[in-house]
Amino acid sequence: MRIAVDAMGGDFGPGITIQGAVQASREFGLEILLVGVADIVKKEFDRVRPSGSKVTIIDAPEFVGMGEGLFSIRRRGRSSIRVGAQLVKERQAEALVSMGNTAAVVYISRKVLGALQGVNKPALSLLVPTLRGLTLLLDVGANANCVPEDLEQFAVMGKIFMTQVMGCRNPTIGLMSIGEEETKGNDLTKKAFERLQASSLNFIGNLEGKDLYSGKADIIVSDGFTGNVALKVTEGVVETFFHIARREIMKDFFAKIGLLLMKKHLKRVYKKIDYSEYGGAQLLGLNGVCIIGHGRSNPNAVKNAVRLARDFVANRVQERIQEEIAKTALAGGGSGAE
Amino acid sequence: MRIAVDAMGGDFGPGITIQGAVQASREFGLEILLVGVADIVKKEFDRVRPSGSKVTIIDAPEFVGMGEGLFSIRRRGRSSIRVGAQLVKERQAEALVSMGNTAAVVYISRKVLGALQGVNKPALSLLVPTLRGLTLLLDVGANANCVPEDLEQFAVMGKIFMTQVMGCRNPTIGLMSIGEEETKGNDLTKKAFERLQASSLNFIGNLEGKDLYSGKADIIVSDGFTGNVALKVTEGVVETFFHIARREIMKDFFAKIGLLLMKKHLKRVYKKIDYSEYGGAQLLGLNGVCIIGHGRSNPNAVKNAVRLARDFVANRVQERIQEEIAKTALAGGGSGAE
Repeated sequence: MRIAVDAMGGDFGPGITIQGAVQASREFGLEILLVGVADIVKKEFDRVRPSGSKVTIIDAPEFVGMGEGLFSIRRRGRSSIRVGAQLVKERQAEALVSMGNTAAVVYISRKVLGALQGVNKPALSLLVPTLRGLTLLLDVGANANCVPEDLEQFAVMGKIFMTQVMGCRNPTIGLMSIGEEETKGNDLTKKAFERLQASSLNFIGNLEGKDLYSGKADIIVSDGFTGNVALKVTEGVVETFFHIARREIMKDFFAKIGLLLMKKHLKRVYKKIDYSEYGGAQLLGLNGVCIIGHGRSNPNAVKNAVRLARDFVANRVQERIQEEIAKTALAGGGSGAE
Repeated sequence: MRIAVDAMGGDFGPGITIQGAVQASREFGLEILLVGVADIVKKEFDRVRPSGSKVTIIDAPEFVGMGEGLFSIRRRGRSSIRVGAQLVKERQAEALVSMGNTAAVVYISRKVLGALQGVNKPALSLLVPTLRGLTLLLDVGANANCVPEDLEQFAVMGKIFMTQVMGCRNPTIGLMSIGEEETKGNDLTKKAFERLQASSLNFIGNLEGKDLYSGKADIIVSDGFTGNVALKVTEGVVETFFHIARREIMKDFFAKIGLLLMKKHLKRVYKKIDYSEYGGAQLLGLNGVCIIGHGRSNPNAVKNAVRLARDFVANRVQERIQEEIAKTALAGGGSGAE
């Protein structure tokens, strides 16, 4: 199996990404296409001095910075992300893995690869750690405007991912809303509720924001606007909490000792709740495999993202999504009038 | 000034609410109408044995439970919340304070009191603690479906509250979205962005979920669906974090000692981030004053909610909202075609 890795993405520069990609090649016996500015990539690659890895460098003269907006993303016609997506399109690689600018990867991969037949909108999905394990949240930002049918398709796509890649049997599906009663929600979720209820999916009803981390459902579907806000609020809460806590604790000697004694354990907690540990976000319903790792990925997280891409390809996730979406459409869940 | 307090609301029963209301009467020299099942209220009131408070008990034979849904709320025609709202409508009280079921208070007070002239949708607003102070988030759940004009009105109403009650000069206003660029967001926020940009408000642009607790803006406007999800996600993150942290820490002797040393400080942090400390949520744009305290309110928090109601009345918040909304409509921000 051959996987293209965007060597230029990630907050820590090409070195870290290349290390992880090389490790993945060695451990999983994969062929890796390292896509990026050839000089830079070659230099970093030589520094790793890998043995037993199958790596080819593919030149892409441009790259998209982590903070760049859509305007400049559009202008970079030969960025590492675009060249990587092109490799997937031309079947020279079976998947693209990038730790780069999420908005750029979503925009470019949709543009280059397009959606699977029958899929209205490829969705960005993310595994979040919960009290009971992992829950898949989708969409987390690829589609700010959705219609009820989109949310049903997200549920179908999430189901395929959870069963095929995560080994979850008959995953439960919840709908992100503002109250558990059927009558709660906005126009979008109320109509989506009806569709999900009528489907053959294992739908357990409305969930609230606080259920995102409770593990009540294996999959939570949401429009991309709400899903993105939910995720970003999480980041904000964690950051703010640690900031205020540190400020309070540093005022007192005993509290500082206390922190010292707990440090190792708090790190372990942080690791548990840090989603960069779980391989990355997946674009479901795309006509090709594309995994977006977290910008903060260390080599190990990069390796996990590559492994996830491998599992995606090996389990034919996108093909199965296409089959299932076609079945759903036949069963009457298709593009009926909204 | 006379303020009606729903004696039956709150997770801890009438006793706690009555204690807080009596304290408020004594400290602020307010007349309190304690609304609830007379026998129960009288018994709890006698237990407090207040001196120097001006309290009258008003009988309301029914009450709404904390977990009850809209169906049963509608059936309780003589609940303490409804009787309290009626007192405000008939000008026998200048404000209603309830620690009860938020959905019930929002539903009943809107039904009984209605909106101010010119206000499309009264909004539920809440002060959240941030790194720099307090930020007002609205709407947090009263209006699941909004049009762009609603968000502009929320901004105007929030501004009046922050200037008149919180003493914040020329408050900054942010729009909850999924990226800071103007082009980011959904159809609703993109149109709301244009309206806010064109208004005379101190609009600072789009914010992301992570900015909710950063203190970047004094006011953040959002449709009620997104605002509610944002708030509930926060609850979920905090609960899950503490749960996982406790589980990890209890495994190790030294970590337990560490926790013990930090306990006092962590409690202080928790107090800082616990919004029940800040008096409660406010319904802005209602034809009458209504404050909703947190269900978990202790007597002190109840007292703070009553004080907030007093400040609301004393600073003529609702009247000023009506004036400002009328001005906005004249300035061309009115109910134009969407």
